Amino acid sequence: MEKLVQELKEKLRPKIRPISWAGDKLILLDQRLLPFETRYIEARTVAEVADAIREMKVRGAPAIGITAAFGMVIALIEKKPRSIDEALKVLEQAKNTLAKTRPTAVNLFWALDRMYNKAVESASKTASVNELLQDLEEEAKRIFEEELEAEIRMGIYGAEFLENGDTVLTICNAGGLATGTGIGTATAPIYIATALGKQVSVIAPETRPWQQGARLTVYELMQNGIRTTLIADTAVGLVMYKKLVNVVMVGADRILLDGHVFNKIGTLNEAVLAHEFGIPFYVLAPTSTIDTKSKVEEVKIEERDPDEVRTVRTSQGPVYVTVKDVPVFNPVFDVTPPKYVTGIITEKGVAIQPLHKNLRRLLNLT
Amino acid sequence: MEKLVQELKEKLRPKIRPISWAGDKLILLDQRLLPFETRYIEARTVAEVADAIREMKVRGAPAIGITAAFGMVIALIEKKPRSIDEALKVLEQAKNTLAKTRPTAVNLFWALDRMYNKAVESASKTASVNELLQDLEEEAKRIFEEELEAEIRMGIYGAEFLENGDTVLTICNAGGLATGTGIGTATAPIYIATALGKQVSVIAPETRPWQQGARLTVYELMQNGIRTTLIADTAVGLVMYKKLVNVVMVGADRILLDGHVFNKIGTLNEAVLAHEFGIPFYVLAPTSTIDTKSKVEEVKIEERDPDEVRTVRTSQGPVYVTVKDVPVFNPVFDVTPPKYVTGIITEKGVAIQPLHKNLRRLLNLT
Repeated sequence: MEKLVQELKEKLRPKIRPISWAGDKLILLDQRLLPFETRYIEARTVAEVADAIREMKVRGAPAIGITAAFGMVIALIEKKPRSIDEALKVLEQAKNTLAKTRPTAVNLFWALDRMYNKAVESASKTASVNELLQDLEEEAKRIFEEELEAEIRMGIYGAEFLENGDTVLTICNAGGLATGTGIGTATAPIYIATALGKQVSVIAPETRPWQQGARLTVYELMQNGIRTTLIADTAVGLVMYKKLVNVVMVGADRILLDGHVFNKIGTLNEAVLAHEFGIPFYVLAPTSTIDTKSKVEEVKIEERDPDEVRTVRTSQGPVYVTVKDVPVFNPVFDVTPPKYVTGIITEKGVAIQPLHKNLRRLLNLT
Repeated sequence: MEKLVQELKEKLRPKIRPISWAGDKLILLDQRLLPFETRYIEARTVAEVADAIREMKVRGAPAIGITAAFGMVIALIEKKPRSIDEALKVLEQAKNTLAKTRPTAVNLFWALDRMYNKAVESASKTASVNELLQDLEEEAKRIFEEELEAEIRMGIYGAEFLENGDTVLTICNAGGLATGTGIGTATAPIYIATALGKQVSVIAPETRPWQQGARLTVYELMQNGIRTTLIADTAVGLVMYKKLVNVVMVGADRILLDGHVFNKIGTLNEAVLAHEFGIPFYVLAPTSTIDTKSKVEEVKIEERDPDEVRTVRTSQGPVYVTVKDVPVFNPVFDVTPPKYVTGIITEKGVAIQPLHKNLRRLLNLT
């Protein structure tokens, strides 16, 4: 496995690099403009990094974490502290600034804490600000590499379920744009199966209201030379009924230990239809997505601005498509009960049915 | 039943009149502008009637049939023929002109034939052009009345399945805008239950790619004071899983004698999800929608312009939402197998399971 991961790290050359570290600055793909414009921006200051996260130029939980981690490195380069004590103060300030950008992003806080703890550890060993900087740069790179390797592992496990000639149905964008690596979670098996010589196609539903499928997944897959077909969300039933897809692969925002999967609204539709028409339904996510504490009835499904449904995001900005004051129900996520899930594919392996037993086993919980 | 139909004809006062006959002209709601603008246009000539149909100012099979029928009356008023023979020639010309407006609209040809046959019958009895005109005006009104009464009957049967406080999930617009009467097919039980004093709410999915739900159903129901909530098509699963709806009611474009239902893309999704979550799923359509000859494998599902999915219709016209050259699969209809259909509600009564037996019984077929 480890050898294959390293080989694939060399071999995979994603055509999109949402996040690149250039030694003293971040080069970020401005995802707000996609798919109409491919524009890269540079972030050389903590303020610029914070702005990129806040304004959603960078999006997706792992991508935000990686960006914030490099933001801590940028803080030291920008502020040029003269002592270790001053450096720690600079980092504390940067951490506070960056943490305020997206108040509910778990990966953001996790990455900032990890970077700050590394700085404290480093400061206990050296008096050189330069060494501290090097340690932090390495740590940020490690966060990026760990994400990349986890996705490659997920992709290797997932690619086992793809045959040459298969077509995958997905939803939303659980791709390399969301994770920042160019590989992604639900897309990882597609890229890896392709790298291993299999021909794999994708059907991507638009995914209203935010149209991540139409705006991001289609763009990302086409850039990487994957045969991609866009459908309206209404067409997911027919493509499964007509067996135009062989397998469904989706990401996850949260997975409970009993196998309930919270993911982008519309995932439940695909899961139930796949179950009914005998098509395997796989969820791809790192084990960090598994919530070992909550029960399904405790998870609140966030509802967002009704205008997201009343309007459509176009190349000319959001435009109304309905009666302006129509009441709207706009849940961001839905919940898929375990019975509709064929397997959950993580960087540590695959949990198949019965999920409530095999997820525990995967996490080495008793 | 007959008494209730007549009572409801008086009592129902739809707030939208897509088609009104004003004695010498048609007053038509320009549906292309909905929901952004409510504008009525007048048609006083055959050319104006033909234009209204061709340019989709009037849409929906029954509405097109009714409009064309009055177009034949307008022909006589416009051209002022001096003899019965001349009148028949005028009508033949008008029939040809109107028939060319929408080449695949069965209701259009049916209504034109019925009007022309009535003229021939009338011409055999009278030499008065005025009497012929009166006969034709009555026939056109009868076509309208028959449509209206059929919808009221369907609505009475359908309203039996609605309890006070119920919420109905629908799809697309099988409403009064599509039929021209203001009552509709899938919406008829909602209007009639409301008229009979029940409180009924509706959840309307947007229905991409043409967004008839967001543009038409929401507008129509709100105009009629029905509590309506718009959702993205991706949310149909969650509203059923959370039991936010008590029943699903949809229209149909074609129903096979074995119970297969062809309807707007996305209907299959709702049918399978309803079946899985124990929610009754009813199809409302006149018996003229039942195709007694075709087998499911013989019905071709029309695919339309990829740009319908690549763009969104907004108040500012269609605008791109994705990569301009992405391949698209854009089927207009899907097919729902009989096992997912709780019942088919027609003007002649309700066919429940087993549909292949009870549809024949409804049509008095052996």
